[in-house]
Amino acid sequence: MPREKAERIIPLAPLDRLIRKAKVERVSEKAASELGKILEEIGLEIARRAGELSIHSKRKTVTSRDIQLAYNQWKRP
Amino acid sequence: MPREKAERIIPLAPLDRLIRKAKVERVSEKAASELGKILEEIGLEIARRAGELSIHSKRKTVTSRDIQLAYNQWKRP
Repeated sequence: MPREKAERIIPLAPLDRLIRKAKVERVSEKAASELGKILEEIGLEIARRAGELSIHSKRKTVTSRDIQLAYNQWKRP
Repeated sequence: MPREKAERIIPLAPLDRLIRKAKVERVSEKAASELGKILEEIGLEIARRAGELSIHSKRKTVTSRDIQLAYNQWKRP
């Protein structure tokens, strides 16, 4: 197994399913892996921001509200 | 099980792991679910664009290059 895959957090099967949901005909395995890399990068950035927001609010638990605000602030141009 | 969860594509465990990678202390289950909702929306949008790019290139298979260009075009402000 390539080294790269061992470090991945989101499994390939759901990523493949996600791409197929867009009604495409065929999906290469590398395409699913590439989407996973991208979504993990975005997810980690949102999680970092959410963690900062929870600390800012003097809480130890990251909540769905932290994730929502982190995402809204991140996606704002 | 709440209806909402049954429709989810990315399982909660890897999402929880992704948030913990940001070195946060605790993560609520709803936070992991919320991040999943966001990443699935983004993933589907990238997949739709990648599908259009593959058709544009007269191919039936979505490749990692399609995913990369779709992401680069999507994230451009």
